[in-house]
Amino acid sequence: MNMGVGVNHVLKPFNYEEIIAVMSIFTRPVLQINLDNLVANYKKLREIASPAVAAAVVKDNAYGLGAEMVAETLYNKADCRNFFVAHAVEGERIAPLAPAAKIFVLQGIGDDSLALFEKYKLIPVIASPEMLQFWKEHEIKGIKPVIQVETGLNRLGFRLEDLEKLNAGELNMFSFVLSHLACADEKDHFMNQHQLDNFNFIRQQYFPKLPATLSASDGAFLGADFCCDMVRLGAAMYGINTAPYRLNQMQNIITVKAPVLQIANLPKGDFVGYSATYRAATNRRIAIVSIGYGDGLPRSLSNVGKVFFNVCGKWNEARIIGRVSMDNVICDVTCIDNLQVGDWGYLVFDEYTLDEIARDAGTISYEVLSRLGKNPRFVREILPAK
Amino acid sequence: MNMGVGVNHVLKPFNYEEIIAVMSIFTRPVLQINLDNLVANYKKLREIASPAVAAAVVKDNAYGLGAEMVAETLYNKADCRNFFVAHAVEGERIAPLAPAAKIFVLQGIGDDSLALFEKYKLIPVIASPEMLQFWKEHEIKGIKPVIQVETGLNRLGFRLEDLEKLNAGELNMFSFVLSHLACADEKDHFMNQHQLDNFNFIRQQYFPKLPATLSASDGAFLGADFCCDMVRLGAAMYGINTAPYRLNQMQNIITVKAPVLQIANLPKGDFVGYSATYRAATNRRIAIVSIGYGDGLPRSLSNVGKVFFNVCGKWNEARIIGRVSMDNVICDVTCIDNLQVGDWGYLVFDEYTLDEIARDAGTISYEVLSRLGKNPRFVREILPAK
Repeated sequence: MNMGVGVNHVLKPFNYEEIIAVMSIFTRPVLQINLDNLVANYKKLREIASPAVAAAVVKDNAYGLGAEMVAETLYNKADCRNFFVAHAVEGERIAPLAPAAKIFVLQGIGDDSLALFEKYKLIPVIASPEMLQFWKEHEIKGIKPVIQVETGLNRLGFRLEDLEKLNAGELNMFSFVLSHLACADEKDHFMNQHQLDNFNFIRQQYFPKLPATLSASDGAFLGADFCCDMVRLGAAMYGINTAPYRLNQMQNIITVKAPVLQIANLPKGDFVGYSATYRAATNRRIAIVSIGYGDGLPRSLSNVGKVFFNVCGKWNEARIIGRVSMDNVICDVTCIDNLQVGDWGYLVFDEYTLDEIARDAGTISYEVLSRLGKNPRFVREILPAK
Repeated sequence: MNMGVGVNHVLKPFNYEEIIAVMSIFTRPVLQINLDNLVANYKKLREIASPAVAAAVVKDNAYGLGAEMVAETLYNKADCRNFFVAHAVEGERIAPLAPAAKIFVLQGIGDDSLALFEKYKLIPVIASPEMLQFWKEHEIKGIKPVIQVETGLNRLGFRLEDLEKLNAGELNMFSFVLSHLACADEKDHFMNQHQLDNFNFIRQQYFPKLPATLSASDGAFLGADFCCDMVRLGAAMYGINTAPYRLNQMQNIITVKAPVLQIANLPKGDFVGYSATYRAATNRRIAIVSIGYGDGLPRSLSNVGKVFFNVCGKWNEARIIGRVSMDNVICDVTCIDNLQVGDWGYLVFDEYTLDEIARDAGTISYEVLSRLGKNPRFVREILPAK
């Protein structure tokens, strides 16, 4: 037994958010967040998008990582002064930490959130004639909303037929015109130019003097035309490769690991996990690792995903066998010598990033990140930004 | 525009956890939890499993719904006195609310959690020789742990080769012997009898006098042999059909709904959503609904899932088109007359339960429930137990 091994792993590179972590990493999974890399990613993207303003997207609790922590870091360590959230309740969380920043609310405004908009001077993104009507009935002094226009994604936004009905006074109510790209992660997708053309047409026709924002972090890689006056940096800032047609230029910011609770022999002919979806064709050796879909690990990694172990300084790869269960995964460690109870299995790290685990899970990195961060059972270890 | 419609929907059946909910349900999704049905499910399962003791499984934050609320309700309204959690930190949350209850910790004990076990008198489930060794070195007076034995799932648990090495003193350290079924949701699966035989052999051989627990809520439907002295009720209590070979005997306990933010025309030939995975072959009408994978809706519902709308007392079904995005889904409402901005789209309700949405998403209800409950952006509405 070697329950102590893990402790050293943990103590080395990280400062602790929770004091309990010092002696505690034997049954709970661990989520490490590298804020230094987050800031580096933000700065690199800002350079790429320059001279466009670099706004940070911290919706969905900063893709699960903690909106307060991320917003405060970008505000203080990188002078970010523009943030996007989805809901006003998310703006409420970060407003006190970024007092001089503009906070834009993508899902807009309703009866529910009026008070929050007023209190924190949040800026609604208005995407439909109905919401514009609502805004006119409840206008908040000193706030100029953003108008979202539809250019091809067919999600939220004013359609041409809606814009035609706006009068001069309404067209002058806004501080920004916004749209969103559908296929910006594919450099040569016809939709990119198509949406840019639509956006430019709408700008010229209806908002010739208004600053504009079209691109999220995938669009930022498509060139200055797409960056307009402001880019909205989300996924790439969190380390995701939003330009998958070339090697990732971003740094990984999260590590997910979990302790080995048990190592056991799996005799030939035995089954593994729920519904007995794996059967050992030969004698195997298995490790039970203390993380499951309850911790945000996609269950679609069943019989497909990988767990990595660093034994004596050498990385080893083990395949998940059987179904991922709520609190555990089982993996085949037959070929890994010297693995011990208490060692760490890595689910996400610099060499197997969110993009890779998402591909193996049959989804996108955004969804994996958004899930992982929401698990309250993680011991969270934060490497602060310098 | 009809942003007020939703309010009536919300006010009718539910009391409010958050006062803000009264005027707030226009941009945020809503999660309703029916604790009355939870208690009814628990009592029905207890009857089915009787005379076995009915323990409640509240791990993973009570499958996402809120461990404190669920444990307190079962403790006070249904006299539940035995709870299972995965991690000691989960036990810590419920212990003060269920002072006379036994709380079993399935992932066991480590250096991390020793203090919590001591403080709250939590009972570790010990699943490996290494953890037993750890326990012997750190034994807490007044606590008799549970031993988990492996019978066919090949997850956590003492193997026969491990049991053979235990001496008489070690065999007498425990208060309960526990195992877990792999295929209990399939009534006639060969693994059920196989695991029961293995369990009975181990009990006779090593723990002839010890009370035993083998079944979770799926096993509870397999008969008295499988119920032993205690069943561990989880999924079925939360309304999931763990006996899918017959109609669900449980009541649905959750409703998930989100407001329509916009209704728009989708012209023939237009694409919808990220990566343009849906193209309109004919003119359509679409609704944008304010919920996405950031709220726990599986992204695998892209182009597959359903949203339901109650218009003028009649339920309508709409198909999700394009990809589910982080904050929104788009659905085809061409055939739904009189739908308005502000109306509610239902993602989970009594007629389209967790089991159905999970099937459409290509996963199990457990995973869907575990994800949905973790979204902090939901307005949570709780129907208390009588």
